Amino acid sequence: MRGYTGDKDAYLKRLRRIEGQIRGLQRMVENDEYCIDVLTQISAATKALQSVSLGLMDEHLRHCVAEAVAQGGDTADEKVREASEAIARLVRS
Amino acid sequence: MRGYTGDKDAYLKRLRRIEGQIRGLQRMVENDEYCIDVLTQISAATKALQSVSLGLMDEHLRHCVAEAVAQGGDTADEKVREASEAIARLVRS
Amino acid sequence: MRGYTGDKDAYLKRLRRIEGQIRGLQRMVENDEYCIDVLTQISAATKALQSVSLGLMDEHLRHCVAEAVAQGGDTADEKVREASEAIARLVRS
Amino acid sequence: MRGYTGDKDAYLKRLRRIEGQIRGLQRMVENDEYCIDVLTQISAATKALQSVSLGLMDEHLRHCVAEAVAQGGDTADEKVREASEAIARLVRS
Repeated sequence: MRGYTGDKDAYLKRLRRIEGQIRGLQRMVENDEYCIDVLTQISAATKALQSVSLGLMDEHLRHCVAEAVAQGGDTADEKVREASEAIARLVRS
Repeated sequence: MRGYTGDKDAYLKRLRRIEGQIRGLQRMVENDEYCIDVLTQISAATKALQSVSLGLMDEHLRHCVAEAVAQGGDTADEKVREASEAIARLVRS
Repeated sequence: MRGYTGDKDAYLKRLRRIEGQIRGLQRMVENDEYCIDVLTQISAATKALQSVSLGLMDEHLRHCVAEAVAQGGDTADEKVREASEAIARLVRS
Repeated sequence: MRGYTGDKDAYLKRLRRIEGQIRGLQRMVENDEYCIDVLTQISAATKALQSVSLGLMDEHLRHCVAEAVAQGGDTADEKVREASEAIARLVRS
């Protein structure tokens, strides 16, 4: 049971759509399609991945971090630190 | 009193350093310095701003969001939504 | 024949590896793995996609834009504008 | 004489406006304004800096890189490599 479990099917559907985008990219490269068109498709796939990340982070704050904070103590501190590090990775990737 | 109040002086110091970087950029442009060197300095200033954002977000989760969550109810929900939107702006800027 | 044609196999290999990362993400979500671990894997896939973009952009500048510029005229202008727009999409995604 | 020289005054004006945004951020922190409002202003300043970068990169491709490419040889190669590295820094910051 995770923060995102309630929306699991929706997340799986989005990830399968992204998998399709990546396969589409392979076809584009195989067919020597124009660089700029390939780049545009990569931007679309990147945005879709980012949007999944932002959704998961929202669920994580809403459930896992909120629970840890409600219980207090070291776990709360640890959960916030962990979330902050994940946000930093998101921002820098 | 805000989440970052305890580190206020450190944040002000970092923002003044960034102000200095922006003034340095103006001098570079005035002196017709090489485009790539100007771009490198802009990347440094952008990274410094991002690092301030990540610090503020950490404090915000640690204090404001944690407090709201501890009290529960609509405010907690609202605070998490607001934090998620700020994270999305960070990631997309 | 495109700017990236010489490295086509290497690009296809990288895209297939990214496809594998996306399928790995689906398994993680199906197995209810920890949100932060899923986020870490999404960051890795995003970085891999970005790195493909940067490689394609380099090839594009090196071949397509360079050729257009060598010929001069409106095509050169158009190619640079198009590359700048693609760079903006990369930076903002 | 650089790629951006023709627009020098416009770039200086934009950089002075960004300097004003950074000073505004210092006032916000001094007045203990709400974290999320500070973060929103940082995102605005970051976007403004990014937009300056994209403009400079466009000028750089249009003038410096185009000239080097027209002359050909090692300089052209070097200029493209340098531009690609600057694009990578932009994307990753």
